[in-house]
Amino acid sequence: MNLKELARKLNISTSTVSKALRDSHEISEATKKRVRAKAKELNYQVNPFASGLRKQKSKTIAVIIPEVVNEFFGPAINGIESVAQAKGYHVLIYLTHEDMKKEISITGLLQNGRVDGILISVSAQTRNISHLEEVKQKEIPLVFFDRVIDSLPVPKVITDDYESGFKATNHLIQGGCRRIAFLALPRTLSISSKRMNGYLDALKKNNLPVDSNLIITLNHDSSANKETIRKLLKRKNRPDGIFASIELFAINTYEVCEELKLNIPIDVKVICFSNLKTASLLNPSMTTISQPAYEMGKEAASILFKMIEKKGHNFLLERTVINSTLVPRNSTK
Amino acid sequence: MNLKELARKLNISTSTVSKALRDSHEISEATKKRVRAKAKELNYQVNPFASGLRKQKSKTIAVIIPEVVNEFFGPAINGIESVAQAKGYHVLIYLTHEDMKKEISITGLLQNGRVDGILISVSAQTRNISHLEEVKQKEIPLVFFDRVIDSLPVPKVITDDYESGFKATNHLIQGGCRRIAFLALPRTLSISSKRMNGYLDALKKNNLPVDSNLIITLNHDSSANKETIRKLLKRKNRPDGIFASIELFAINTYEVCEELKLNIPIDVKVICFSNLKTASLLNPSMTTISQPAYEMGKEAASILFKMIEKKGHNFLLERTVINSTLVPRNSTK
Repeated sequence: MNLKELARKLNISTSTVSKALRDSHEISEATKKRVRAKAKELNYQVNPFASGLRKQKSKTIAVIIPEVVNEFFGPAINGIESVAQAKGYHVLIYLTHEDMKKEISITGLLQNGRVDGILISVSAQTRNISHLEEVKQKEIPLVFFDRVIDSLPVPKVITDDYESGFKATNHLIQGGCRRIAFLALPRTLSISSKRMNGYLDALKKNNLPVDSNLIITLNHDSSANKETIRKLLKRKNRPDGIFASIELFAINTYEVCEELKLNIPIDVKVICFSNLKTASLLNPSMTTISQPAYEMGKEAASILFKMIEKKGHNFLLERTVINSTLVPRNSTK
Repeated sequence: MNLKELARKLNISTSTVSKALRDSHEISEATKKRVRAKAKELNYQVNPFASGLRKQKSKTIAVIIPEVVNEFFGPAINGIESVAQAKGYHVLIYLTHEDMKKEISITGLLQNGRVDGILISVSAQTRNISHLEEVKQKEIPLVFFDRVIDSLPVPKVITDDYESGFKATNHLIQGGCRRIAFLALPRTLSISSKRMNGYLDALKKNNLPVDSNLIITLNHDSSANKETIRKLLKRKNRPDGIFASIELFAINTYEVCEELKLNIPIDVKVICFSNLKTASLLNPSMTTISQPAYEMGKEAASILFKMIEKKGHNFLLERTVINSTLVPRNSTK
């Protein structure tokens, strides 16, 4: 059953049927009712590809993220999905696994009308941004969330990474720490450099020296990370506080401390950016900077739909900041 | 730049250009090379909707799951995505939030060619299956994973829920438990009834009575769950072992035990189906039945693509079982 056949059965033109199905104001309510009833009776469904060609709308958005097994990106997807579902939109999920090449190939696939808009949190490897500039040049609505490229003029939804980095470091200093290690993601990543700047400024404000040997870049390979943390904690002059920029690095730290029989918080205090559901059940319970992941996803999607629907003002320079919360627990007592 | 214009520039027919771009064996390598070079030069990209109309292929699969913030479904998505990416396919993710009405509305949206196949793990509420029978009738390739409908003849990828339920219960009995509570999902759900049958048979085999007051159905509302678990653990005759059918129920149990100052494992032992990354770091570390989530997702996607490509035999009755592993830790010591 296609549109033509449906029109023939109704004995009206295909364009009238099409407009009626799209709830056009040009068509009377009576006709709309008749068309809908017939369409239902004959089990007619709009072909999304034909419909996409006509309307140049895919009713689909893409979400590009580094990973899905993650207490930040999981809730962020929920926030995005809540908005998309209300708009009747479909959500394509793409995972870069922190690989810039994959990110480039994914954005390349999305430039021919497959999606009406893109939400992205860039990979830890992303340095070159020409693939994102291309998306922007093609006027595909694009919104960054969490991990952003500051130099690209598109809307951004972030948390207060600098302030939270400052607060986390200050919290350790107030707990008595004097040698605080910072476990970083690559510094090219917006969230990492901002969190680190917060850390550095908190040290300065408290007149503590910056020791570059205590700033350590890790990645997503737990066994390599644990080897690095092991070396760090075996040093004569080992740190008395650890500030992990992401959850994985804190988990790796807990594992190494157990192995080396170091007591958290007596031997070393630990704080980290994390939305871990089990943070309060860990041994010891973990002090976290909890991020508003769901809200960030929801806000980013709301802005994207305003762009898709061309509603409101120029969003391009908009920057929305939703604050994180420090939740003190036993790992910094 | 469309296909017609590209063909004109190359001075060959549109059908030759189209075949060349699809890497057809009918076209010589020399021509393919020439076409590809010109397409690149002129920045020609295939319109996915026009292309979808011609080929009746969307190059997209749908994954319908209850939730994404979950240590099972997260890795399962990774497994699915690894296969889809290798095939050049896009992945639409739909969340039912355990709501059958949402599941019905989602499957309804997918019946008009938007996707080439569907992977589904049904919601805890799903009783009526006519929406899934409809998908099958329309000959859209459909594969169940983890949470399946046994009566529907489509391929299924599951873990050994019955055997694992038996092993988990036996493990508690060998640890000295005599009054074991089972925290269940609704029994209509395949995984829940199989896990419970394993629990019941392990009790029988060990000549322990079945006490229906110890079989408790919970849902996804933590505060309601905790209220129920609180009542259970305040009974005079409180259980000495708890077998949680999903991770959330074990987390709720840990929280209530902390609140009531009950010692795990001395006062009550706890085991649960879970892929929690932090299971070994909990206080105490938690004994789990660890499910092969990534492998199950990968296998389900592989079977779906065989169906899409119409390769091999009749898959409809295929049932793939990938075993889970019991990992003993301190919560059952």
